[in-house]
Amino acid sequence: MKSIAIRGKVWLEVDGKPFMGQGRERLLRAVEKTGSINAAAAELGMTYRRAWGQLNEMAAVAPFPIFFRTKGGTGGGGTQLTPEAKELLDQYAQLRASFDEQIERSSAALPPTGPQENT
Amino acid sequence: MKSIAIRGKVWLEVDGKPFMGQGRERLLRAVEKTGSINAAAAELGMTYRRAWGQLNEMAAVAPFPIFFRTKGGTGGGGTQLTPEAKELLDQYAQLRASFDEQIERSSAALPPTGPQENT
Repeated sequence: MKSIAIRGKVWLEVDGKPFMGQGRERLLRAVEKTGSINAAAAELGMTYRRAWGQLNEMAAVAPFPIFFRTKGGTGGGGTQLTPEAKELLDQYAQLRASFDEQIERSSAALPPTGPQENT
Repeated sequence: MKSIAIRGKVWLEVDGKPFMGQGRERLLRAVEKTGSINAAAAELGMTYRRAWGQLNEMAAVAPFPIFFRTKGGTGGGGTQLTPEAKELLDQYAQLRASFDEQIERSSAALPPTGPQENT
């Protein structure tokens, strides 16, 4: 039995270059939560190198700083998102959630199988 | 001056395989309009071979027939979409248009440039 599914994705670009999609949203959220690139990478099952690379790719195209390193303190320093990055992250997350909802609603309106299944 | 843009796409899959996206929507619409794969390909600046290939890829995964050849008549035969294909095409077109509108609306809410431009 063949079934039709709606798929979609939404992402942000800066000057035509990919900036934020669902994967990077997750990474930024994990950095925000843990205050550490290392902990964020571990949480997502990524290598530190890969997480660091993605953050730096984002930083290279972003119109404003997206993170900063903190030094010292009990944790021995870490990484924080800038307020601008947090705001954009929230905007993107809302947008993506709204898209996902729309896909779910529209999926309910599609026949699960083609009309021929009835013949 | 860097500007942030929202990009998105939506497509249909059948059993996890790509079935219809914006390119194939255009092709089906052109076949519907012209009644001919050849004329549709010409209208879209595609080779006949490519148009035919895409239609056959769709036909291979579709849960119902998507087109049929007509023989004879004044035009010497041609290609027509099935009613099921037309209906699904309309559903997809509406969905895509609704996504595009949402992207446009959300784009208006994003700052055209980052906050740092103001400093």
